[in-house]
Amino acid sequence: MTFRLFDAPQAEPSQFVGFAGNVIDRQAEKRSDESANTALSDPSARLLLMGGGRILLKFNGDAVASSYFPLAEAKALGADVRDAVLLGVDDNGPVLAVSVVVEDEGLPESIKAVDYRSVYMQNLVDAGALGALAQGASLLAWHASHRFCGKCGQPSEMRIGGYKRVCTACATEHFPRTDPVAIMLTVTRDRCILGRGRHFPPNMYSALAGFIEPGETIENAVRRETFEESGIRLGRVVYHASQPWPFPYSLMIGCFGEALDENITPDTAELEDCRWFDRAEVLSMLDKTHPTLFTPPPGAIAHHLIRAWAESA
Amino acid sequence: MTFRLFDAPQAEPSQFVGFAGNVIDRQAEKRSDESANTALSDPSARLLLMGGGRILLKFNGDAVASSYFPLAEAKALGADVRDAVLLGVDDNGPVLAVSVVVEDEGLPESIKAVDYRSVYMQNLVDAGALGALAQGASLLAWHASHRFCGKCGQPSEMRIGGYKRVCTACATEHFPRTDPVAIMLTVTRDRCILGRGRHFPPNMYSALAGFIEPGETIENAVRRETFEESGIRLGRVVYHASQPWPFPYSLMIGCFGEALDENITPDTAELEDCRWFDRAEVLSMLDKTHPTLFTPPPGAIAHHLIRAWAESA
Repeated sequence: MTFRLFDAPQAEPSQFVGFAGNVIDRQAEKRSDESANTALSDPSARLLLMGGGRILLKFNGDAVASSYFPLAEAKALGADVRDAVLLGVDDNGPVLAVSVVVEDEGLPESIKAVDYRSVYMQNLVDAGALGALAQGASLLAWHASHRFCGKCGQPSEMRIGGYKRVCTACATEHFPRTDPVAIMLTVTRDRCILGRGRHFPPNMYSALAGFIEPGETIENAVRRETFEESGIRLGRVVYHASQPWPFPYSLMIGCFGEALDENITPDTAELEDCRWFDRAEVLSMLDKTHPTLFTPPPGAIAHHLIRAWAESA
Repeated sequence: MTFRLFDAPQAEPSQFVGFAGNVIDRQAEKRSDESANTALSDPSARLLLMGGGRILLKFNGDAVASSYFPLAEAKALGADVRDAVLLGVDDNGPVLAVSVVVEDEGLPESIKAVDYRSVYMQNLVDAGALGALAQGASLLAWHASHRFCGKCGQPSEMRIGGYKRVCTACATEHFPRTDPVAIMLTVTRDRCILGRGRHFPPNMYSALAGFIEPGETIENAVRRETFEESGIRLGRVVYHASQPWPFPYSLMIGCFGEALDENITPDTAELEDCRWFDRAEVLSMLDKTHPTLFTPPPGAIAHHLIRAWAESA
């Protein structure tokens, strides 16, 4: 009952969410303080150029844009490659990411700075490039907010291609941070709970979510947050899928929860609305045939949670 | 196929691992800068006293020790309660955790300072207290290593009962860190892979593990780490259970992986040994009837992964 590997589908649900298509070989065990420089000296090296929540994309009239720039082009666009992080190697060679000051004026006609969320929502790059974006954006955001040692306050320095920082004063090692977030769909056999955060686009409803805290299992975090946000107690909780989420460096962990009661008491500080939806309404929201309401798009893990339940009957 | 909530067991595997038995109501949505002081003024408040990887336990001749100290006793043992973090409320009132300088000399006869790992391995406290230990230890370790702002290097201050720090100079908010770690059992229908880390007790073999990196799904992290550590490519990967792991603040995420080949190439920098084990050998290791080798104890998520596979045939 609790061992179900050989009954599972060949491709797990996590393979179908946005940001999950990264094909870069990280070569984590080979990282050294020379990794990034060695990669940059490879003529096939390509860089992602990112800054202020945006990435530079090259539009060449193709269906999808390119986010990969050769070294000379990256330098011409203002990249200081001494700060580049090495994401790894794909079939075409090394891939790095580096911060640039992104200004729309002065960019060549074919290059645009696009915020990460639009790249994802509008499928502007292919799945592999979107995965690389998630890796690069998370790492660069971590470096930007961890230039100083949390233990002693002195400056720290990047090491092993960007996968470590070391304090210049006390030598404490710091590693990239990834914040696990539970995102959960509370269901009965006939209905599910969707809510609206205060920052959501108008008319969008989604699964509830919150950070997993120190000292709790994934499933207990799902129960706690569901109760806090909706007043509903959960029984069974099962994992469904995960998604890298580069805002700034989260790991979304998607679960289903079994509602033990049906009376919702929404946390109005957090949510604008939170209510039960029946299967037919949810299916029309997923497929955009609902007259007013909709769910997050197919790249979002919430979409996959909602669809997996809605199509399960 | 991908929606299996109503086929799941009533209690998920995560409920049976060590550190998972926390019954404290965190009341996360009610946290304020007054929370800890209000809790301390409640005569039913009890404190966990921790320092240097050890916790103070009171032995009263019972089967299990107590880790809960009333305020007066905590102060007498040297706790500076201005730095206490509020874990939440259990049936007996508020529970807090605070750092103390733990010295064995000077402690009353009935009180011992015990390292976290021994508390867990020897079941010295009940499941609820072990869960509270994980929560308190993780939070206190985070505070100790994040006294300064990573962004600007200036001192930060504890807020909302210990669930936030705010920089005194740039006002950046910092939240507790939880590091997701993948721990995975690679299997075929007949054999599984176990390895020995260089720091393991002699003769213990366990599942392989490693940190999930920015920009990867749980399942892809399992595939990457399995390949790096054993040279084995994985097909299907399924989640099994999770475990809070307060060394210092990890979340172990346990999965099964389907081996696509059988030729192991161990990462000898990381592992002392890594090989295939058949079901009979593994069962004897779990049950301690093997002449020499053994697995981690029943509180460990690795034990549950190994047992769930071994008993599945």
